[in-house]
Amino acid sequence: MTGNPTDAHEPGTLRPGGRTARVRAAVLDAAGDVLAEHGFDRLDLGDIARRADVGKTTVYRRWGSPTGLVADLLDQMAQESLPRTETGTLHGDLTANAHLVQRTLADPRQGPLFHAVIAAAACDPRTASALAHFYEVRVAEWAPCVEQAVKRGELPRGTDPSEVIRAVSAPLYYRLLTTATAPTEADATRSVRATVAAAVAGAYAF
Amino acid sequence: MTGNPTDAHEPGTLRPGGRTARVRAAVLDAAGDVLAEHGFDRLDLGDIARRADVGKTTVYRRWGSPTGLVADLLDQMAQESLPRTETGTLHGDLTANAHLVQRTLADPRQGPLFHAVIAAAACDPRTASALAHFYEVRVAEWAPCVEQAVKRGELPRGTDPSEVIRAVSAPLYYRLLTTATAPTEADATRSVRATVAAAVAGAYAF
Repeated sequence: MTGNPTDAHEPGTLRPGGRTARVRAAVLDAAGDVLAEHGFDRLDLGDIARRADVGKTTVYRRWGSPTGLVADLLDQMAQESLPRTETGTLHGDLTANAHLVQRTLADPRQGPLFHAVIAAAACDPRTASALAHFYEVRVAEWAPCVEQAVKRGELPRGTDPSEVIRAVSAPLYYRLLTTATAPTEADATRSVRATVAAAVAGAYAF
Repeated sequence: MTGNPTDAHEPGTLRPGGRTARVRAAVLDAAGDVLAEHGFDRLDLGDIARRADVGKTTVYRRWGSPTGLVADLLDQMAQESLPRTETGTLHGDLTANAHLVQRTLADPRQGPLFHAVIAAAACDPRTASALAHFYEVRVAEWAPCVEQAVKRGELPRGTDPSEVIRAVSAPLYYRLLTTATAPTEADATRSVRATVAAAVAGAYAF
């Protein structure tokens, strides 16, 4: 958020974007806490302003609605999305990805938070589009590991990198969303084993 | 719901359970409509009573809350879950299952309905447990096709039938829930191809 033109008019900030960025961080942090603890239906802008120690007017003017807040939180999550790990093998790379997803979904704060934003996306098109964007960013970050595996000859030519990355995550999310239990390390390991076997067999090739 | 003891006292019913069953069907139908059209956050018992042409008191007494209504809808969905198709091959059986799931999630009423109940489960433990039960019933219905494939020698011994069935559905739900677009026939076909390849390679064996 640095470089936001409105910040040029804020006196006393150390750098352009400083105050705006701090307000955004505090508000999105509070929103994440409420989503993780109580779910989307308890997200209230007045409550968020109080928790973040930010003026109510600022929160209403900047985010407008709980769905606006969730959409911005998803944008922040996409911006802060971790870079992929490169291990030199497809199995190693997908394992790193699967364990990152599994640890996130099993985390006491992050798991309920993801559950809540996915639920919020069911009720609101703007949130749905922010959520879809978040996953596009994640998939694009990891897709090159599949392209590299094709170049190394580990996978058939024509393998769709995005489909392979999605295949690793799908069973972990499916477990969280349909059974309301967190995916385990064993789930992550099995998902990688299954995805690699399917990809090697050409299941994701055109 | 036939055989519900309270119905023995209802005069004028053709069979025990008749009126109770009809009221339940009308109320759950209306609840399904509202969930599919507007999502869980718009589910209101008074509105449901009006739409179902059933007394408000009956609805409040019997279901108590929107989450109670969703939990009962999920019980009904589990009861009415279609029997599996037997085609004689693992590929054929899993294809029948995948296309059933895909058509359901792509259906203009059923797709949003599933999206809504999964969202509702994120906010309420009772709904979450009814949702988990629904998927247990679905998985148990289809698991025997994997057992038969193991017996026919199509899959390695020790293959976990439930994991194979879940693997077919996972990418279809993942697509619906993270991109808010319905899974396509091509998604179903790819999911079956990937799951069979992974299962044959032993990815779901202990």
